[in-house]
Amino acid sequence: MSELIVWTYDWVPEGPRGFVRDLRLRWACEEAGFDYAVRTVPFDDRGPDHLARQPFGQVPFLSDGDLKLFESGAGLLHLARKSEKLMPRDPAGEAQALEWTIAALNSIEMVTVPWWFLEITGAPDNHLTPWLQSRLDHMERVLTERDWLASDRFTVADLLMADVLRVSKIRAFGHRTATESYVTRITERPAFKKAHADQIAQFAAADELRA
Amino acid sequence: MSELIVWTYDWVPEGPRGFVRDLRLRWACEEAGFDYAVRTVPFDDRGPDHLARQPFGQVPFLSDGDLKLFESGAGLLHLARKSEKLMPRDPAGEAQALEWTIAALNSIEMVTVPWWFLEITGAPDNHLTPWLQSRLDHMERVLTERDWLASDRFTVADLLMADVLRVSKIRAFGHRTATESYVTRITERPAFKKAHADQIAQFAAADELRA
Repeated sequence: MSELIVWTYDWVPEGPRGFVRDLRLRWACEEAGFDYAVRTVPFDDRGPDHLARQPFGQVPFLSDGDLKLFESGAGLLHLARKSEKLMPRDPAGEAQALEWTIAALNSIEMVTVPWWFLEITGAPDNHLTPWLQSRLDHMERVLTERDWLASDRFTVADLLMADVLRVSKIRAFGHRTATESYVTRITERPAFKKAHADQIAQFAAADELRA
Repeated sequence: MSELIVWTYDWVPEGPRGFVRDLRLRWACEEAGFDYAVRTVPFDDRGPDHLARQPFGQVPFLSDGDLKLFESGAGLLHLARKSEKLMPRDPAGEAQALEWTIAALNSIEMVTVPWWFLEITGAPDNHLTPWLQSRLDHMERVLTERDWLASDRFTVADLLMADVLRVSKIRAFGHRTATESYVTRITERPAFKKAHADQIAQFAAADELRA
């Protein structure tokens, strides 16, 4: 029996398919070669049981035996400590993977997600655009100088940063060629493709149950 | 000689004093009883040397001997692994402290900072207000049920969450009494008061050098 379980919704509408953040944990498990299972909680009914496991009513959460973790970033750091494929074991490599994992969450996604939120809620001017431009410019400069964020090789930091940047309107924002090729290269990895296809297939199969 | 060095600006305007994020690292060092030094980089001139250490042109960064880390969240997790006062050593306690540290960065601050940004840039309607309300409601429910986020005691997760929530307009948002008393209780800790006073004093002293 698998000890690692990635929890996600039993169904989501078409829009977010391929982007629900359980994908990050599936992908990390695929990269590391971990045996894992995927289980679901109801999308439609997020009651006290759900809030007890994810206090903001979201997914994913991860269980590892008796341990439970919510927040995809926390799940990734937990998985990374179990596999050198995700995080180097030397102190400098570990520090780099950690700082860039946090940067993906708190310097890039802290801007991209609210920017996207304003786009879809139809505010006439998106006042976060200059901030987004500035952060993406900094990333473009970094990615012009190197292929990987930490230790000259793929780590959990690249997994998360590429996932944050792959949203289509953000990825193409202003034709940043180094960023575009970084995202393309990383999302061509077999582990990403499998995780992505598995998520799409799971939600598509759920359509039939609801029909 | 101290091995731990918290890097911040040599000066900032009055507005952000008491909120520059080097405070998080000073505070963590004070809680853990670490010997540490504070050194500065120019606020006015953020050139290639600065970007090589903090790719988004911000502060703080932390050095620990030969290791260097940017992102206050990464610095906190690095310090937390060096002291049980900041992060429990049992796997369940460690998982809780980790998930709540990431939640502070990616579920709360990801909303509060862009919300604040829209407030100060004077957008006529702040379209992030319902999202902020929702996240703060979830936190209020959690903080009504418990005094600490992890392991029934103070951890790095409380340090970061209280720092994220203490911004005055957000803290008072809608009279959430459990959140208000949580922030008050945590910012009354001597380690916070010392870190806060030290930051204020450093930037005030820098005024005289610039005068």
